[in-house]
Amino acid sequence: MTNSANHSAAYIPSSQSITVLSPATVANMVCGFDILGFALNEPNDELTVSISDQPGVEIINQDDFDLPTDAEKNVSGAALLAMLEECPDIKGFRLLSNKQIKPGSGIGSSAASAAGPVVAANHLMGNRFSKEDLVRFAMFGEKVASGVKHADNIAPAIYGGVTLIRSIFPLDIVAIDAPPLHVTIVHPQIEVRTADARQILKQNVLLRDAIKQWGNIAGLVAGLIQHDYQLIGRSLEDVIIEPVRSILIPGFNDIKSSCKEAGALGGGISGSGPSIFMLSETAETALAVESAMQSVYNKIGLDYHTHVTTINTTGVKIK
Amino acid sequence: MTNSANHSAAYIPSSQSITVLSPATVANMVCGFDILGFALNEPNDELTVSISDQPGVEIINQDDFDLPTDAEKNVSGAALLAMLEECPDIKGFRLLSNKQIKPGSGIGSSAASAAGPVVAANHLMGNRFSKEDLVRFAMFGEKVASGVKHADNIAPAIYGGVTLIRSIFPLDIVAIDAPPLHVTIVHPQIEVRTADARQILKQNVLLRDAIKQWGNIAGLVAGLIQHDYQLIGRSLEDVIIEPVRSILIPGFNDIKSSCKEAGALGGGISGSGPSIFMLSETAETALAVESAMQSVYNKIGLDYHTHVTTINTTGVKIK
Repeated sequence: MTNSANHSAAYIPSSQSITVLSPATVANMVCGFDILGFALNEPNDELTVSISDQPGVEIINQDDFDLPTDAEKNVSGAALLAMLEECPDIKGFRLLSNKQIKPGSGIGSSAASAAGPVVAANHLMGNRFSKEDLVRFAMFGEKVASGVKHADNIAPAIYGGVTLIRSIFPLDIVAIDAPPLHVTIVHPQIEVRTADARQILKQNVLLRDAIKQWGNIAGLVAGLIQHDYQLIGRSLEDVIIEPVRSILIPGFNDIKSSCKEAGALGGGISGSGPSIFMLSETAETALAVESAMQSVYNKIGLDYHTHVTTINTTGVKIK
Repeated sequence: MTNSANHSAAYIPSSQSITVLSPATVANMVCGFDILGFALNEPNDELTVSISDQPGVEIINQDDFDLPTDAEKNVSGAALLAMLEECPDIKGFRLLSNKQIKPGSGIGSSAASAAGPVVAANHLMGNRFSKEDLVRFAMFGEKVASGVKHADNIAPAIYGGVTLIRSIFPLDIVAIDAPPLHVTIVHPQIEVRTADARQILKQNVLLRDAIKQWGNIAGLVAGLIQHDYQLIGRSLEDVIIEPVRSILIPGFNDIKSSCKEAGALGGGISGSGPSIFMLSETAETALAVESAMQSVYNKIGLDYHTHVTTINTTGVKIK
């Protein structure tokens, strides 16, 4: 390690490794397009990082997703390479990746791939970087995935809970206190590419729609922090993005109305879809909501997966 | 009182009267166009209401603003008439109006005229109406003033503190908890008509600007409720309305930059202007901010009034 003299951190033996669970996340949270997101307790990617004497980032995939092993083209690799640039005492990292979150599902698969490894590496290096630094590194991974550095999945994956990206440049992340919430997710087995979902958005919006939207965002943030479930429910309304994007998701309107009838506070498209999420006040309602989702997709005859979980309040966890 | 039998409320002698202080208010709060507002402890209008045996609303102006005394054309009158329609046991009201808040100043003069009388009348009638009802009545007054039923001044005048209008139709008002804040206002002695200030706004906004704006709104609401002064300061940024409207206010940019140098957390146009407000964490800073405002307008040679006050947490007060 020729450049260890440039940095004050202690030498870390290459034999040490750490395994983390990196969570799925829901970006946008209906009205909070590009600014709000939250982490889920299930599903998680399992990622093991060790310090390596080989320069660069070595990637070993242990799953069947056939993701690239060239670090620069790999989401985890790009995040770790960005981190490595600020670690003159470290030569390289080795990553074992065992993904459980299906790429393209709309619940932050790429963010889990980007966030987990940098949190793990940071632990190995004595937590020398702040959470904000880790988000900055992980955003390089998101850029590989979608061409855009966005943080609305990465921030909740790293911070846990509900996070606000007040500003992306300069980065300003705010942890939003929230009451316990149960989350039901349905992932219809169709593909919606993030790039396509972004492409169909209009570049201009009506001022009167923007005003409705920011009224709902203000209501949602107030409802979360003040633990007012009814206000959260009333504020989960999106007059700008959902009307456009939901046409890419079969059965969207039926899912939404039947979930609300089953008692959900509200919900909508997870990230850019195709997954749909619903928030409920109790575990019992979250299960009733799952049944409602199943009924709709069984009727349509579309394959799907569901998850019934809660908000992960800690972010990436050491296993 | 021929129709008292239609209503369960007790008979109220016409000799009773009540005097209230109805506060100035700041609408929009920089990034929260049309949805946020807060009440001030100074200045206030003084309004005295009594029940009358004469049908309709009699208005006696005790100030020099030469406002109409025809109830339907008068802001207070229109609000009381709307209330009267839902009081079958009451024939009429009599109002003595002594306004201290100059019409057209941008600190909610019409809202004070509309809110105070309905709060006073409600007290006289045993508080039979909810605050939300009172906002609904007072909005008829705002319609007389500006042609539009808006509630971003009326809601804080009636509720006190900082209020969110999540939705106007149907009306959904949320009280936002806020830390103690000191407010400095400068009112340059020029006229900006609300209708003109509304006219120059563009009907379309860029989605990317709308996203910045709702990031700031979410940050402001979170900062207020979490009592995080620095987050409040960072979030007081308006990329949509202020760049357009501020051109109507001489010296706006100089005022803003010199107030921030003097220690203000931030601020901007109050309502549709021409008044400018700044928020500070301490009374001392609020006074330094006043001096900064005075310097700019003294240099320009423009007449002005200033107010240094705090947020009124109770709304309209019985005197």
